[in-house]
Amino acid sequence: MFILRSLRRSITIPRPKAFDRQKALIQALQLFWRQGYSATSVEDLSRVLQLSRSSLYDTFGDKRTLFLEALRFYSEQVISRTARTLQEAPSPIAGIQAIFDELAAGAGNERGTMGCFMINSVAELVPYDPDVTKIALSYSQAFQRLLADAVVQAAVQPVQRGEQTPAQLAAYLFSALQGIRILLKSGATREQVDAVCMITLQSLD
Amino acid sequence: MFILRSLRRSITIPRPKAFDRQKALIQALQLFWRQGYSATSVEDLSRVLQLSRSSLYDTFGDKRTLFLEALRFYSEQVISRTARTLQEAPSPIAGIQAIFDELAAGAGNERGTMGCFMINSVAELVPYDPDVTKIALSYSQAFQRLLADAVVQAAVQPVQRGEQTPAQLAAYLFSALQGIRILLKSGATREQVDAVCMITLQSLD
Repeated sequence: MFILRSLRRSITIPRPKAFDRQKALIQALQLFWRQGYSATSVEDLSRVLQLSRSSLYDTFGDKRTLFLEALRFYSEQVISRTARTLQEAPSPIAGIQAIFDELAAGAGNERGTMGCFMINSVAELVPYDPDVTKIALSYSQAFQRLLADAVVQAAVQPVQRGEQTPAQLAAYLFSALQGIRILLKSGATREQVDAVCMITLQSLD
Repeated sequence: MFILRSLRRSITIPRPKAFDRQKALIQALQLFWRQGYSATSVEDLSRVLQLSRSSLYDTFGDKRTLFLEALRFYSEQVISRTARTLQEAPSPIAGIQAIFDELAAGAGNERGTMGCFMINSVAELVPYDPDVTKIALSYSQAFQRLLADAVVQAAVQPVQRGEQTPAQLAAYLFSALQGIRILLKSGATREQVDAVCMITLQSLD
């Protein structure tokens, strides 16, 4: 839930109005995240967003359209948050480390077991939903571009030695982050996750 | 689908009978794997297994009971298959490499995008379903025990040097395998996956 609180904090709402569309979108996102796409009914959405079925439809379209908007919104938020973490760190390596530390902090609590809304959606709907497949690919590419830039800026040894390209190391780091997400959901302890993060980051030495 | 074909081949059916319960279980598993738990209705199961609703109930119990049996069956099959891969390899390191190679072969085809039934189920149902959470934990532990044994037998350098324990390296390898599963679903190419496998396995040097 932490990331959602941060999402809410980071949103600039242009002007006050009776109905807060962005807030409703985040409520829908939370519901889809918790229950999955198929298990979430229009009735659930209507109840949680406190909108009649027809207002829900007028505001967001059908369930699938709302889900895709929520997934795109989540993707943009995670990418901007990751970019910010990398920018604000004292060095590119510290930035990469911070992304792993933030993830490891989810061990044994709801943040970890909730998992990642993108992974949940990919697991549930790829490859049979072409739109989710497309969103997942562009999320994966955008995340890897951020990591590859950090790897270039860090001038890490495997790249300097010509053993790996920044893109290969970025794919490796992205894959490791996804794996840790599943590890957290599979009941790993903080000690286990810390060890996995440490071994992963040694590949940059 | 490859793993399901192997699952079918590896099954010893005790005696021929008019109704093949194991075959029906595998059909249910395939359906849950493809559609997810929530999106699979009793009607779908009844149609695919060619059983009336009452026969379905008499044979497997309700939808959730059938799902849990399918997930436990999948878990056992993957664990035995992994144990076999490790045993049949010319060396423990070659066995670990073979597990990664097998996964990488799923890049760009249905085997890769179908993903892993366990990960799909974990993403969809953990932490809110305590039985799935329990099955996922014991799958994760059994898989990591196999990897830890292989790491011990291989007497890998990081363990010899006292930098990591076999259990830590096993958690790292397990996490990497889960990450690659998600990477495959997110549209990674064979070249990208091969690079990720290579970098991962370098941590054993």
